Amino acid sequence: MNISIIGGGAVGLFFASQWSKDHCVTLWTRTDMQAEMIQRDGLYIFENGNENVQYIQSKKIGCQPLQADLIVVAVKQYNMKDVMGELTNAKSHSIMFIQNGMGHLDLLDKLPHHHIYTASVEHGLVKINGGTIQVNGRNKTNIGAFRGGTEEIIDHLQTDSFRFEWRENIHHMMIEKMAANAIINPLTAMLNVKNGQIAQNEHYRSIAKDLCREFASVFSYKSEEETFESVLSICKNTAYNESSMLKDVKEGRLTEIDAIVGVLVKEAEKKGCHVPLFRMIYNMIKGKENMPPLMSN
Amino acid sequence: MNISIIGGGAVGLFFASQWSKDHCVTLWTRTDMQAEMIQRDGLYIFENGNENVQYIQSKKIGCQPLQADLIVVAVKQYNMKDVMGELTNAKSHSIMFIQNGMGHLDLLDKLPHHHIYTASVEHGLVKINGGTIQVNGRNKTNIGAFRGGTEEIIDHLQTDSFRFEWRENIHHMMIEKMAANAIINPLTAMLNVKNGQIAQNEHYRSIAKDLCREFASVFSYKSEEETFESVLSICKNTAYNESSMLKDVKEGRLTEIDAIVGVLVKEAEKKGCHVPLFRMIYNMIKGKENMPPLMSN
Repeated sequence: MNISIIGGGAVGLFFASQWSKDHCVTLWTRTDMQAEMIQRDGLYIFENGNENVQYIQSKKIGCQPLQADLIVVAVKQYNMKDVMGELTNAKSHSIMFIQNGMGHLDLLDKLPHHHIYTASVEHGLVKINGGTIQVNGRNKTNIGAFRGGTEEIIDHLQTDSFRFEWRENIHHMMIEKMAANAIINPLTAMLNVKNGQIAQNEHYRSIAKDLCREFASVFSYKSEEETFESVLSICKNTAYNESSMLKDVKEGRLTEIDAIVGVLVKEAEKKGCHVPLFRMIYNMIKGKENMPPLMSN
Repeated sequence: MNISIIGGGAVGLFFASQWSKDHCVTLWTRTDMQAEMIQRDGLYIFENGNENVQYIQSKKIGCQPLQADLIVVAVKQYNMKDVMGELTNAKSHSIMFIQNGMGHLDLLDKLPHHHIYTASVEHGLVKINGGTIQVNGRNKTNIGAFRGGTEEIIDHLQTDSFRFEWRENIHHMMIEKMAANAIINPLTAMLNVKNGQIAQNEHYRSIAKDLCREFASVFSYKSEEETFESVLSICKNTAYNESSMLKDVKEGRLTEIDAIVGVLVKEAEKKGCHVPLFRMIYNMIKGKENMPPLMSN
């Protein structure tokens, strides 16, 4: 297949490396510099103490129209609007979106394409620099159809070491992912701790439980206990992982707080649910976004 | 007067320096080292670019029985229990307590002395080391009677540059102080910002407002708006100040969270008020207390 991946973050780089043997992959990046670096030096993957290089095609997004069998959109949700123009005009059989949160689903409605998938990634990935990632743990990618599309796509995409799982209900899939993101990401970012501490420290665990109660009151398809169990298990499985939001806060970058907790708070308002703790978490991170990096950490 | 001050923190050192000209002051410290250092080198006060030295008597607490016209207790609330034995046997006309929070009032009930005052300090003080403080701003000390005692004590204690104000209702006085401490201290400690940021950053201000709502629901003698106004005004007046709790968290020390927010949460439970935000703030700081200093910042 011809696969175009948009986004040079950890997920984009990882997917490009996994498909590069069986498919013709092009990675589209935001900057010329990253595209040139990857095109020239290849993509480095560190995993279990081993180093691997994959050579793939890489271009700056916008330098030519998109055309591929499958386009994978792996940019952060707050950058979705920047690529919508390219996507609307893209010639492609299928598009797959890998964003946290659910705020981008409205945007997908506007696309003309017949096959649109959404996915949620359960791999532990860290971007070291523009051409290097570290794989801290492989799990799977959940995928489902937003419009059109069938389970068969998985047969084309997965390999033994790069698994996909079909999900009939993409809303449930995304809500599950959102619970983890809405609780683990901002908490670790605020407290400046690795994921494992949320499960290990009794006081932090107690905060996570209170947040699960609020979360389950808004998205009630799983109970407070089920949500808490799933959040704890992710914290334990990714104990030594530094969440992406903690990294963003440390480096004074924009975070995904609007896409995740912002959307949750709005949904709560719509449904008349009270989520004072999420409001406070939202304001804590949002306040940090408005401060220069040196002050915020 | 013979005045004994217990506690070699910023408040103890400042009070000792202010009274040393007109009274016979003894400063009682927790360690031999600090007592010897002050006894030998004097007490250094930095203020408005000037340096001042005062020579006073300093001893380690417990090395001999306490006997004075006035004993001033300026230890942190969580150290109160350590000095209660000394105090119970102390021969003194009056005792004055300067602690944050209200948790120590139960302890005062057990003391046999006829004149017991409580006070709350509005000076901006920073301890530089065991024998040096910096005065960032002078305001006043509020004082009232817990048992016995009269307004006349102020005439003996105050000078032109070291003012006292009599308060008929010490509970109101302490609640006012508690509002500031329960909101500004943990918020600045969590967010790692100076006091001014709480007023300046719209997101942090919004958190402070929500906390004022919870505070006013528990201690209702002032409204949410009055509480918020007073908290904001303190943040602005002490804009460049780093709160004591932020300092404690940075250095991995015990904080006053139990004495302040812990007491508030318990009081809320007693009254059937919901204070989810204070519970979360409590758990955030409490969780940090249980972590090694290098991880917490």
